[in-house]
Amino acid sequence: MKNIAILGSTGSIGTSTLDICHRYPDRYRVVSLAAGTNVQLAFQQCVQFRPVVVSIANEYLADTLSEMLKNEAIHGIEVVYGTAGTVRVATLPEVDLVVSAIVGVAGLEATYAAVNAGKSIGLANKEAMVAAGELITTAAKKHNVALLPIDSEHNAIHQCMRGGTPAEVKQIWLTASGGPFRNTPLEDFEHITPAQALKHPTWVMGQRITIDSATMLNKGLEIIEACRLFDLPPEKVRVTVHPQSTIHSLVEYVDGSILAQLSVTDMRLPILYAMAYPERVPSELTFDLAMLSHLDFQQPDFERFPCLRLSYEAAKAGPAHCIALNAADEIAVAAFLKGDLPFLGIPRTIERVLELTPAANPGSIAEVLASDASARQTATAVAAEMLVKH
Amino acid sequence: MKNIAILGSTGSIGTSTLDICHRYPDRYRVVSLAAGTNVQLAFQQCVQFRPVVVSIANEYLADTLSEMLKNEAIHGIEVVYGTAGTVRVATLPEVDLVVSAIVGVAGLEATYAAVNAGKSIGLANKEAMVAAGELITTAAKKHNVALLPIDSEHNAIHQCMRGGTPAEVKQIWLTASGGPFRNTPLEDFEHITPAQALKHPTWVMGQRITIDSATMLNKGLEIIEACRLFDLPPEKVRVTVHPQSTIHSLVEYVDGSILAQLSVTDMRLPILYAMAYPERVPSELTFDLAMLSHLDFQQPDFERFPCLRLSYEAAKAGPAHCIALNAADEIAVAAFLKGDLPFLGIPRTIERVLELTPAANPGSIAEVLASDASARQTATAVAAEMLVKH
Repeated sequence: MKNIAILGSTGSIGTSTLDICHRYPDRYRVVSLAAGTNVQLAFQQCVQFRPVVVSIANEYLADTLSEMLKNEAIHGIEVVYGTAGTVRVATLPEVDLVVSAIVGVAGLEATYAAVNAGKSIGLANKEAMVAAGELITTAAKKHNVALLPIDSEHNAIHQCMRGGTPAEVKQIWLTASGGPFRNTPLEDFEHITPAQALKHPTWVMGQRITIDSATMLNKGLEIIEACRLFDLPPEKVRVTVHPQSTIHSLVEYVDGSILAQLSVTDMRLPILYAMAYPERVPSELTFDLAMLSHLDFQQPDFERFPCLRLSYEAAKAGPAHCIALNAADEIAVAAFLKGDLPFLGIPRTIERVLELTPAANPGSIAEVLASDASARQTATAVAAEMLVKH
Repeated sequence: MKNIAILGSTGSIGTSTLDICHRYPDRYRVVSLAAGTNVQLAFQQCVQFRPVVVSIANEYLADTLSEMLKNEAIHGIEVVYGTAGTVRVATLPEVDLVVSAIVGVAGLEATYAAVNAGKSIGLANKEAMVAAGELITTAAKKHNVALLPIDSEHNAIHQCMRGGTPAEVKQIWLTASGGPFRNTPLEDFEHITPAQALKHPTWVMGQRITIDSATMLNKGLEIIEACRLFDLPPEKVRVTVHPQSTIHSLVEYVDGSILAQLSVTDMRLPILYAMAYPERVPSELTFDLAMLSHLDFQQPDFERFPCLRLSYEAAKAGPAHCIALNAADEIAVAAFLKGDLPFLGIPRTIERVLELTPAANPGSIAEVLASDASARQTATAVAAEMLVKH
């Protein structure tokens, strides 16, 4: 029996994780949950899974949740809140594995605390590795903690890495669906609307991640995440566009062999892999190879997708630039969705913010958060300036 | 430094193995060679690699070879011959790894002796596993010997198997090029000529294996080999047609993940893998993923390729039927190449021989050879009968 903590229990990764806990009651026990503001869903999850501790965004919601549980005559669930509450959920002594799925830098502190408490981590929080990758991987090594990526691409890499030692890896290849504008002529990019950009061909996701997929900044963040997770320089992390998203990524070994991982596009599969690791447990998430007819591949177009180029540049420039890339993108995407920036204003904002970012290597989570806040300030100013021109 | 013995040194696998020994002089030392009748090439190999022992087909050729070495003032190479000679090459105390690449059942005895002497085996001899798979795998377990397949498909499976435990494997998928008649209308099969059948789209190989590829009997032997090597029942060994032969095979795990191995179609890669195992050593046998545009797949057609169906039937019926399948095919292919049998006479002969074969499980190599001889007799009679009708 593995004891599971879920950071971000009401999000899509969180609910998928709970779905797995529900399907495998003999293997996984939910001991703690951290939700955001969706108190109704958090309450339902408490009713169904009876965790020991639940954390919610703030004191007011914690009181509400306590009241709801009391009215339902459910006792013995400790209700906590805020960052301290999330940290408590992540570091509870009986927790074996923490599924870290709070979006953005919000889950950073709790994830870092969990690593330092020696918990295995199922990592769905891309920004954690982008913003604080070195801190987290260093702590993971020190505490001999397994970092198990839940992103489908990094999960695929983790699986393919089992075919050799890290030193035997020549390079890795992340697959990219290419997003909705894979075949859009370059001259049409300036006029892409939010509605067009929010249609993703393969995955149904949140708004920011869908826009990030359209600009391929999402793949850029994955490149940085892969560098941190697998201790590889940026030039050893390659991208190939594969519209079907059947092959989730590939590892190329020094002898010339390439291992690839294929599966259905269902997030429960990488979640289950992380939860079961080092075992594999049977699931019904079957991909029928007998129905496969063809897989297509093409080269990523760095001219059409400047965010890819910028991501490699940030990866080479160092941690402060990776933080800036992520922060500037979040600000720019929000501005684009509001209609304040054109589609190409996103990479332009990022590029300008990267230029304005001094090289630095934050030595603590506090420094990471300060660096992030500073980049957001810069990005807001840059985007506002572009809005005036736009 | 690994000490290498090569059974079948003058064949294509043998010369490729020597090419690797030549390229990695610090890693591999050739200590013994077994050749067939190509005394000229065996001599050249002795001159270049200076093995401790060399074996050749018979006493006459052994005398010839000794004379040639003496004339070149090369001393200290022991020349032996015949089956006893091959066994000596395979079991020399200083040998670490035996590359078993003698085609047909001829290499069987030496391979079995090598396993019993505790040598690691690089296995390129399909028939060994088809005819004596249980004997060899049982001995390998007893002596804790690694059986490292050199066939590109089984080598791929071996690599993909590193992603989990044997119990976590749901099924495996062998890829098949589909041969030259993948898209030939069923009604044209009766009139396929040897010249047409000898053109293979992907690999350049010997005559029998090329015809086996055209009938897909080759894939059938691989199914049986995979059952033995990976201890799987026939229904867990599937086939998918993949004309590009870029993915060499795949392993499907119980959790729904599928691992695939991709590489160039160069036999030196699986040979190097087997020689280096459990390490991977750098090579220039690179497959450039950036140049990949598409991979195609289709279902194998059991009506067009009855040899596939017959292979599954033989695998289910047991060892004597696997031996009969292989023996009958060798006889039938020879008759087809001579013009004595039509193309579809190959599966017809095999089917009839399988019907005439009583179930049995040979308990020694002598019994395997007796079973093989008996099947050949039956097959010769069946083919002769068909010739009369034809």
